[in-house]
Amino acid sequence: MRTYLDIVKKVDVVPYSHEAEYDDFVSHFFRLKSHDGSFNLGYLIPSVVKELFKYPQYFMINDNIVKFSFSLDTIEKREEALEIIGNEWKNQGLFDTLKGWRNEKYTIYGPINEVYFHLERAMCPLFGVVMYGVHINGYVKSPITGEIKLWVPRRAANKATYPGMLDNTVAGGLGYPYGPIETCYKECYEEAGLEESYVTKNIKSCGVISYLYQLKPFDFESELGLVQPEVEYIYDLYMDENTIPHPVDHKSEDFQLMTIDEVKKRLLNGEFKDNCGAIIVDFLIRHSIITPELEKDYIQINSKLHRYLPFPVRSN
Amino acid sequence: MRTYLDIVKKVDVVPYSHEAEYDDFVSHFFRLKSHDGSFNLGYLIPSVVKELFKYPQYFMINDNIVKFSFSLDTIEKREEALEIIGNEWKNQGLFDTLKGWRNEKYTIYGPINEVYFHLERAMCPLFGVVMYGVHINGYVKSPITGEIKLWVPRRAANKATYPGMLDNTVAGGLGYPYGPIETCYKECYEEAGLEESYVTKNIKSCGVISYLYQLKPFDFESELGLVQPEVEYIYDLYMDENTIPHPVDHKSEDFQLMTIDEVKKRLLNGEFKDNCGAIIVDFLIRHSIITPELEKDYIQINSKLHRYLPFPVRSN
Repeated sequence: MRTYLDIVKKVDVVPYSHEAEYDDFVSHFFRLKSHDGSFNLGYLIPSVVKELFKYPQYFMINDNIVKFSFSLDTIEKREEALEIIGNEWKNQGLFDTLKGWRNEKYTIYGPINEVYFHLERAMCPLFGVVMYGVHINGYVKSPITGEIKLWVPRRAANKATYPGMLDNTVAGGLGYPYGPIETCYKECYEEAGLEESYVTKNIKSCGVISYLYQLKPFDFESELGLVQPEVEYIYDLYMDENTIPHPVDHKSEDFQLMTIDEVKKRLLNGEFKDNCGAIIVDFLIRHSIITPELEKDYIQINSKLHRYLPFPVRSN
Repeated sequence: MRTYLDIVKKVDVVPYSHEAEYDDFVSHFFRLKSHDGSFNLGYLIPSVVKELFKYPQYFMINDNIVKFSFSLDTIEKREEALEIIGNEWKNQGLFDTLKGWRNEKYTIYGPINEVYFHLERAMCPLFGVVMYGVHINGYVKSPITGEIKLWVPRRAANKATYPGMLDNTVAGGLGYPYGPIETCYKECYEEAGLEESYVTKNIKSCGVISYLYQLKPFDFESELGLVQPEVEYIYDLYMDENTIPHPVDHKSEDFQLMTIDEVKKRLLNGEFKDNCGAIIVDFLIRHSIITPELEKDYIQINSKLHRYLPFPVRSN
C-alpha cells in the first residue's frame, strides 16, 4: 500500500542538493543555460543533447552545460532557432513527446520576469523548462454535516498520457497568452461545461504546488527520464448540489462524485494521474483531513509539495 | 513599503544551494554533525564554535564541521554533555539567548524519526537545531457577507523577544512531550482563555510552514546571525462572534479584532513579529485574499513558505 509521502515523491523526484543521491543525479544530466550564461533554464537528458550537437550555430555544448549561442540575443532569434529544430525533429519522428504537438505555446521566463522565449508545448519537456498549469478541486459540501465530496473525472482511454487514470476535476496548461484565472475559465468550460459566471462566483485560489518531476526516476537515457519542473496554480471550486460537471470537449470519459474515503482509497491505490494525486494530498491537508496527528510524514509532504525550483519562474 | 515577498524573505533568509550567495553563506558557518557523522543537525556560528573548542571530550572540530564525539553514542550521554555545557554557559553569562532559559525541553530528531536528544529550549538556537511550534489564526467570518476578520494580539512591551509587536492569535513552541494538537489546547487556554472543548470543535490543521531564519542576515559573528531552522504547524480556528480571546498568562497585552485591510496594512508596515507575518501571508493565500493575479511573486512566496530543510525533521 502506498503512503501519502509516496504519492508526493512520485512528482517531486529529483534529489535535493543535501541528499546523498544528488551528485549522482546531476552527473547524468546537462544544464540548459541562457545565451549570456547568467542563469539556468532546465535539465537536459543525453539523448536530447546528442541531437543538439547537430546545431552548433544555436547551442554551445561543453562538459555538462548546454548554452544558447551568444548570438541568440533576442526572443525572436531564440524562437526562430527553436522552431527550426522543432520542425526538423517532428518531421524526423525523433521524440515520442513530439507526437503530442499542439500548436500551443508556453512562456519561458528569465530572472527578472522577462519573457525569454515562447515554445511549443510538446517541446517543453525536451528542454526541461518550467511548465505552468491550473488544477481545480471541484467539491460539494453538505450544508448540514459539512461533509466534503470531490468531483473526479476519469481520463479518456485513448489519451496519449495517463489514459484511463483519475484526474482533478478540471486542469490545464497555461498556454500563451492566458493567465491562471483565464485558463480556469477556459478549462472549466471545455472540460466540465461550467460557465464563467458560475466559476467566478465559486472559485478560490489556494496556493501553488511546485516540484521536479520525472516519469521514471533515474532513467538517464530514455524520454521517460525527462526532468520536468512544474508549477500548478491550485484552486478550490465550490459546486452546489445542482451543478453537475459534464465534458464538452470529451477529453474526460465521465465524472463521479466521490466521498473523501473513496478518494483516499483510490489515491493510495495509485489510480490518480501522478500530479493530480499530489494535488489531492494538498487538498486533504488544507481541509484538515490529513492532519499532523494522523500523518507521520506531514512535514516532509508539505515541503515537497512546494519545491523552490532552481530556475526563474513566472511572476505575473 | 514592504511587499509580501519581503515579509517571507524575513524568515526564509538562508540562500538556496543554486543561488549566488550560497557559497559565501556556507563558508562562514559550521555544520553540526551527529556522533557517527551520518547526518547534519544544524548550522553553528563561529562564536559558539569558539566555546565548543573548550569541550574536546564532547565535540570534534575540523574545518567547518563540528561533530559530536563518537563516544556520545546514546541519548543520555549527549544530553548529559549538553547539560554540563548549558549550565556552564548560563553561569558564565555567555550568550544573551540563554537569558531566556525556560526549563522546557525541545526534541531533536534523527533521520528515521528517532529521538536524537532533548535540549533546553533556550539552547536550541545556539546549536542551530530544528525547532517546532504551532501558530493559530483565530478568525471570525460573517455568516452574511463572508467577510473574514482576524484576532490579533500585541506582544507585551516587556517581552524579551519582539516586544510590542503584533502576533498570531495563539502560538507556542512544541515543548517535550507535547504534540501539535496538545500544544494548541495548552496555548489556546494560556494565551487566549479558550477551553479545549471549544478549540476541539473549531480548529483545523492547514499545513506546515518551514524556513531557515536568521534575525540578522549575513551576520556571521553575533548571536543575531544564529541560523534557526523552524517548522510551524498551522491551524485556522473559527471563532464565533461571542467568543472573545483574553490572555490568562498575561503574555499578550491585548487582543484586537482586525479587518483584513487593517491586517494587510500593518503587515506591509512591518508591525508583525517576523514569523507571524509569514504565517499571515500563508493565511491570506489559502483564503484567496492574495491571488496569482494580484501578487506577482505568488510562486516564489509559496515555495519559500515551505522550505525543505536540510536536516531530519519530526515525523509524528
